[in-house]
Amino acid sequence: MKAEFINPFLTAILNVLSTMAMLEAKPGKPTRKNNQVACGDVTGIIGMASDQTKGTMAITFTEPVILEITKRMLGEELTEIDETVSDMVGELTNMVTGGAKAVLSEKGYSFDMAIPSVISGKNHVISHKSKAPIVIVPFTSEAGDFFIEICFED
Amino acid sequence: MKAEFINPFLTAILNVLSTMAMLEAKPGKPTRKNNQVACGDVTGIIGMASDQTKGTMAITFTEPVILEITKRMLGEELTEIDETVSDMVGELTNMVTGGAKAVLSEKGYSFDMAIPSVISGKNHVISHKSKAPIVIVPFTSEAGDFFIEICFED
Repeated sequence: MKAEFINPFLTAILNVLSTMAMLEAKPGKPTRKNNQVACGDVTGIIGMASDQTKGTMAITFTEPVILEITKRMLGEELTEIDETVSDMVGELTNMVTGGAKAVLSEKGYSFDMAIPSVISGKNHVISHKSKAPIVIVPFTSEAGDFFIEICFED
Repeated sequence: MKAEFINPFLTAILNVLSTMAMLEAKPGKPTRKNNQVACGDVTGIIGMASDQTKGTMAITFTEPVILEITKRMLGEELTEIDETVSDMVGELTNMVTGGAKAVLSEKGYSFDMAIPSVISGKNHVISHKSKAPIVIVPFTSEAGDFFIEICFED
């Protein structure tokens, strides 16, 4: 996977959270995901495909983190991951991928976005089935930690 | 969503299970998924996209069902959803989508497949974020019940 595929997603999530949730997040070091240790309570996932490349991106939050983001984005104080939270995670997923798609398009990589799906369930684990490396980027923020996973085949 | 988008996926899963797991499954009535009642322990999910259309497909199994399918496909008697099972669900997802893609291509619908991802976690729920209807098809089999969800935007 080309390194230049990663940054547009990082920039997009930082922009989206800063603008929509007034939340400043800080990316940690991208690392190759070798085992399926990363787990969370809610994940937005979206596929991307074109003749040139195919990939998938997932954003995973624990319950306390996404509830704080929901409070900041919607002004609603919720106590569990319900449909409102799930819809918001779907929207975040769309916005981040849309932002990254625009930047990658300028670099000559075009792809079409599939439909985002949101998985809810305590402590689930996502495993991307590709021979290409999967890059996981942890983020820290006032709301807590979260992470994104990106996998692209050249 | 066009009804003709559904059948190629149903045919593909029946073929794959019959050939690879010696398992005859029977599809129930496709229904529109109105609320997120369907849940499972392991799900294979894949995005599809082209200029014409975009979509997503998910196959969800409970633990006992996928362990029986694993036994039939790999000859291995496993007691929990581990990496072997997860990889097999990823393969199933690829084979079903690949089969459906070939049939849809003959009908003039072309799309590229994204990378399949597999979600493991007790009782997780998948929610596809699209204005298009989501169709859920239950299957019965000797191994137990499972279902697929398909969502395509025209």
